[in-house]
Amino acid sequence: MNEFELIARLTRALPTNESVVAGAGDDCAVLDLGALDKLVLFKTDAVVEGFHFTQETPPEKIGRKALARGLSDIAAMAGTPTAALVTIALPEKFDVEFVAGIYDGMNALAGEHGVAIVGGETTTNPERILISISLLGTVARGKQILRSGAKAGDAIFVTGELGGSLAERHLDFEPRLAEARWLAEHFAVHAMIDLSDGLAGDLRHILNASRVGAEILKSSVPVSRAAKLRARQGSAAKPAFVAALTDGEDFELLFTVASTDAVKLLDAWKQKFPKLKLSCIGKIVAGDGILIRDKGGSHQLNAHGYVHFA
Amino acid sequence: MNEFELIARLTRALPTNESVVAGAGDDCAVLDLGALDKLVLFKTDAVVEGFHFTQETPPEKIGRKALARGLSDIAAMAGTPTAALVTIALPEKFDVEFVAGIYDGMNALAGEHGVAIVGGETTTNPERILISISLLGTVARGKQILRSGAKAGDAIFVTGELGGSLAERHLDFEPRLAEARWLAEHFAVHAMIDLSDGLAGDLRHILNASRVGAEILKSSVPVSRAAKLRARQGSAAKPAFVAALTDGEDFELLFTVASTDAVKLLDAWKQKFPKLKLSCIGKIVAGDGILIRDKGGSHQLNAHGYVHFA
Repeated sequence: MNEFELIARLTRALPTNESVVAGAGDDCAVLDLGALDKLVLFKTDAVVEGFHFTQETPPEKIGRKALARGLSDIAAMAGTPTAALVTIALPEKFDVEFVAGIYDGMNALAGEHGVAIVGGETTTNPERILISISLLGTVARGKQILRSGAKAGDAIFVTGELGGSLAERHLDFEPRLAEARWLAEHFAVHAMIDLSDGLAGDLRHILNASRVGAEILKSSVPVSRAAKLRARQGSAAKPAFVAALTDGEDFELLFTVASTDAVKLLDAWKQKFPKLKLSCIGKIVAGDGILIRDKGGSHQLNAHGYVHFA
Repeated sequence: MNEFELIARLTRALPTNESVVAGAGDDCAVLDLGALDKLVLFKTDAVVEGFHFTQETPPEKIGRKALARGLSDIAAMAGTPTAALVTIALPEKFDVEFVAGIYDGMNALAGEHGVAIVGGETTTNPERILISISLLGTVARGKQILRSGAKAGDAIFVTGELGGSLAERHLDFEPRLAEARWLAEHFAVHAMIDLSDGLAGDLRHILNASRVGAEILKSSVPVSRAAKLRARQGSAAKPAFVAALTDGEDFELLFTVASTDAVKLLDAWKQKFPKLKLSCIGKIVAGDGILIRDKGGSHQLNAHGYVHFA
């Protein structure tokens, strides 16, 4: 049973109530807690030593990453983060300076985005550090962007460049909060997600939630320099395009708008965010699955995100 | 460096913003997210295999306890819980039925209290299960009860009976949500906390936050049957009164009201909650520290919660 199958089983019959606008299955839960003009976003995300960072990772970068991941989920809803709680599980003998460094990295990023850290707790995990961060945010009522709104004919966009994040970027990425809010204010964004599992996996989350398929133009996918460099490191390396589809931890925005908005969006984006690439990588189609188009024709992407070209 | 010293260091300079009504250092954080009549409560709490439960604990009870602990913190603010996120960190080979059992226990308790479970995540922790639950709640604006409002002269009350929780009750306790809301509606409660560390430790949290001291009447402290039974199990056992002060995980309410309200409160409580004991155990005094009074005189409680009687 993999992570997604387990989650599907565990979330089959969760208790709910009238405050829930969107429950499990999107980047954040969306709640109506009674404010006239705002809904509340609620999210939790954990990083674990040996999986998301190592003992050699500078502690400030661990703390930064732990918070940035959740901020990226708030961005994916076009929200504004408000407050965070930090749970840190530590071995019984821990290095106080290392833990203080984790907080320094977290506090600095929180300060940049106006996020209050309002508590949390320390607990014991003898074998490795685990940090779980809970986030609260807000979004203008009706302006939240879910995964489920993509429509056949939509243009699919992605920010930045994809693949090879583990070389460095997974510790330094910028949550795309300002970009997402600008998008939601100026365009009718139909569906949005942040790229944590990789383009192939996260696009599939949008497609499943929206009950549609996608055609991706291979030459339009922005492949990062790190992925290209790594692809040249011998025949065992992932081809750069496959890395862009499957590496994960890009934390860029993937979203769809009506195709009639596509050119206007690209123009406005260049004016507003000249330093951040925005790429139109394909379109939403009726049906399901992901079709990759290149000069040689079309190829269905398999369930694991890997593409097999003849 | 113990847990409290570490927390004091880490929370020295946390980022804040204008939404924060009460940050780190109370049972929940209190936030103003724009609702006219309500404030938002925000809390996170984790349980770890080998510390808060074992592999032999029935999974339903693990899930129940994981959620009940946070609900008890919402109660301590006189709040109403709304929604929860569940982070569960699992070894790579886990028993699906065991994990489903944890969710069954959690879902059942959430249903009892009208709490929606709106997502969370699964992640990896190879050596042991760790469950972290984030909770959102609400409280009528201005009706939140902090730890910092105790005043010299206040009467100190505790619900239920204390000590010996590890024998059974730590898995089955009822979060005192209805009782706390009734208290806040009908009486001017000055300070409140839920008993997780034990009466001695948690009373000290109220005293430190309120900059006052307390006198406790030994004969008034409600000692549980489990603590009394255990005290008889040989000379190495904790005396029952010490167990009531220090065992922890009682999850009863400890609170203070003006002494002029004390008799009225005891009468009203008996009518409203005839099955749950309410005890007046002493009074708040100027100064600091905890004085225990018995027939032999007064004794200062030491910093570790243990009392040494001559």
